[in-house]
Order: sequence, then structure tokens, then C-alpha cells
Amino acid sequence: MEIKEIFIQTSKKQELIDITSLIQEELEKLKNTSKKNVTSNGFVNVFVAHTTAGITINENADPDVKEDIINALKIFDKCQFKHLEGNSPAHVKASLIGSSVLIPIENFKLKLGQWQGVMFAEFDGPRKRKIILNFYF
Amino acid sequence: MEIKEIFIQTSKKQELIDITSLIQEELEKLKNTSKKNVTSNGFVNVFVAHTTAGITINENADPDVKEDIINALKIFDKCQFKHLEGNSPAHVKASLIGSSVLIPIENFKLKLGQWQGVMFAEFDGPRKRKIILNFYF
Amino acid sequence: MEIKEIFIQTSKKQELIDITSLIQEELEKLKNTSKKNVTSNGFVNVFVAHTTAGITINENADPDVKEDIINALKIFDKCQFKHLEGNSPAHVKASLIGSSVLIPIENFKLKLGQWQGVMFAEFDGPRKRKIILNFYF
Repeated sequence: MEIKEIFIQTSKKQELIDITSLIQEELEKLKNTSKKNVTSNGFVNVFVAHTTAGITINENADPDVKEDIINALKIFDKCQFKHLEGNSPAHVKASLIGSSVLIPIENFKLKLGQWQGVMFAEFDGPRKRKIILNFYF
Repeated sequence: MEIKEIFIQTSKKQELIDITSLIQEELEKLKNTSKKNVTSNGFVNVFVAHTTAGITINENADPDVKEDIINALKIFDKCQFKHLEGNSPAHVKASLIGSSVLIPIENFKLKLGQWQGVMFAEFDGPRKRKIILNFYF
Repeated sequence: MEIKEIFIQTSKKQELIDITSLIQEELEKLKNTSKKNVTSNGFVNVFVAHTTAGITINENADPDVKEDIINALKIFDKCQFKHLEGNSPAHVKASLIGSSVLIPIENFKLKLGQWQGVMFAEFDGPRKRKIILNFYF
């Protein structure tokens, strides 16, 4: 089991950012330092350490999909909220999108579908954000 | 750790399909080939390799529940979308429902609640779909 | 691998209940009985064995956030439903919030962000509810 932390700086109030290559880089480092066979299989949990951001898997090709997801969730912006910080929609979206994704690993590679990318979902940026990676083999 | 792939053919544009027995079948095969003690405990990650479908756990008794979930999510069909393929609502629903579920295993059986079934959520069918099972003991 | 079951009694029709300390208590028990080094790392899957409740991670400070999440999800109360039990909105919300969260463990402590708490999401209470904890080290 390996725990790694990675950090990203978001640049907008709300956006999806493809972090697939950042996770794959960490996986490459583990491969290079590992005494294990190169066919090592396992999984990684990608976990966001925040309550106004989430992690999801979605299309890595057309960037319009990322924008469409952000826009569809604006349906929750119109609700009546009590939390005085004013970022309640971000909290709601974080819980709906979820705080982590668990991805299979085969031969030290993320076993994703052809169009799948791992997306960090910023709902209250721009901020510096921490992502925790738990690798298991 | 064992990685298995299963395939299903969906038959509608949108539907929930109970795949619990398909997962339990793979678990039975592992039990039969295993040298492990029959009380083996662990978990399985059920992961969908697509961006317009999801995996969720919900009621396995009344089929109306599956239909009600599909219908409730149509709230996202009316949004303004940019993605030219026209299936943006399916991408949104996939991220909301999520791409995987992690289920405890006890004595080579899925440790689900009495009314829980594992549901494949098709949002842009009918299609042939791939599901990746990661078993850990 | 350790499987533990914990039970909670909810008191409202709909509410988020912070169960972080209940999970940490089980982790302390494991630490005390463990022969492992005190720096043991791993993860825990927190899984709800019901179809009208969920598990999510969100803010542990201002209780208004919990209420705001419950209220935002009422957007699904107005849909047309077929399920005769009348609790379809609870089933929809359970699938959107999700049935489990996977949390990293470092030094026998949940590795959560500063403002993160693990929340049991009751959508059809009050009821006695079962939560399954899968610990891996």
C-alpha cells in the first residue's frame, strides 16, 4: 500500500480538470521503484480532501462535456440555503459528484475505458487543492 | 487480487439492470478455484468502463423503483448543452450516479442489505457494455 | 481485513448525521488489538446496507451545510413516481449520494481533510440503520 499526495491549482470558480496523467505519473514512479513484477495489478483510490470539490470519471475527448456537466449542476444554485459562507451549492455538488473514485490497475496502468478520464471537479475555486492517492497491489 | 470483465447488452435508451447475480456467479467461480478457506472475506469493486453509464445500488424488489430513478434524472434533460453528440444528459447522469460501487464480501457472498441489488445504469443505450470486477481477499 | 457492523438510530425523516467519531472508535479498537506497527496505513470502506439512505463526506463545522444538502435534494420530491410505497424520492437520493465512501487511513487515523466529516444520509427515517465497515491494512 502506498499513499501519495498531489496538489493542483484550479483557475476558475467552477471547472472539471483532467488529472489522469498526474495519477499515471505517480504510478510510473511506483513501477520504477518497485521490486514487483511488471505485471502488477491492483487499484488506486483517488480521494479529494475538501468539501467543495469532488472527483468523477467522464469523457476525456470533447471539452464541451466537462462544461456541460458544470452547467447542468447549476440547477442547484437556485435553492434556498442557510449556510452563511454562500458556497452551499458547492457543498451540494461535492456530495453528488462524490469525494473519490476507485480505479482498477493492470500492468501498472489505469484500466480505464477508451473515453474515460479522471476529473477533478472544482465547485468553489480558484484554490489550491489536495488529492490523496491510495495505491494497492 | 482478481480482475474479471463481464459484458452486458442493454436494450433501451435508459434503464437500470440488476447485475447482482452476474457478480455472484464470478464470485462462485473464484470460490471453486480458490485454495483459500471457505470463510474468505474481502470486497469487490464494480467498475463501468464507459462515460454514459453508471453503477449504483438500489432496491431489487419492486421494478418501479428502477423506473422512478430513471425518470427523476430526466430533470437534467432540459439543460442547455454544447456537446454536439447530443448525449450530454447521459454524461451528466453518469457522473452523478458514479462509475463504481465497492461491496463487502463475507464467506464468498456479497454482503448486501436485504433489499439491495447492484444496478447497471444505462443512460445512452442500447449498447454492449463492459464492467470490470476487482476482487480482493 | 476486518469487517465491523455499526448501528445508528436516526430521528428525523431526512437528515445528515456525522458518524466520523464512530468509525474512528472502531479504528482505535483495531489499533489496540493489533500486533501491527502503530504506523499502519490502509483504508476503510463505509457502506450503508439500505436503499433509502446513503453515505457522503461533507463539512463537519457549520450544521447549516447538512441542512442545505437535504433541502437542495428536495428538487427530486416533485417528480412523478410509480413506486407505491411513496418513498421514491428517498431511493433517488440514495443513488445520487451513493452507498459508500472509501477513506484513506494513516497511522490508524482517518486521513480526512480539515473540514471533512463522514455523514450518514437518512432519506426515509426515522429508522434503525446498519453500516458496514471494511478495514484494510
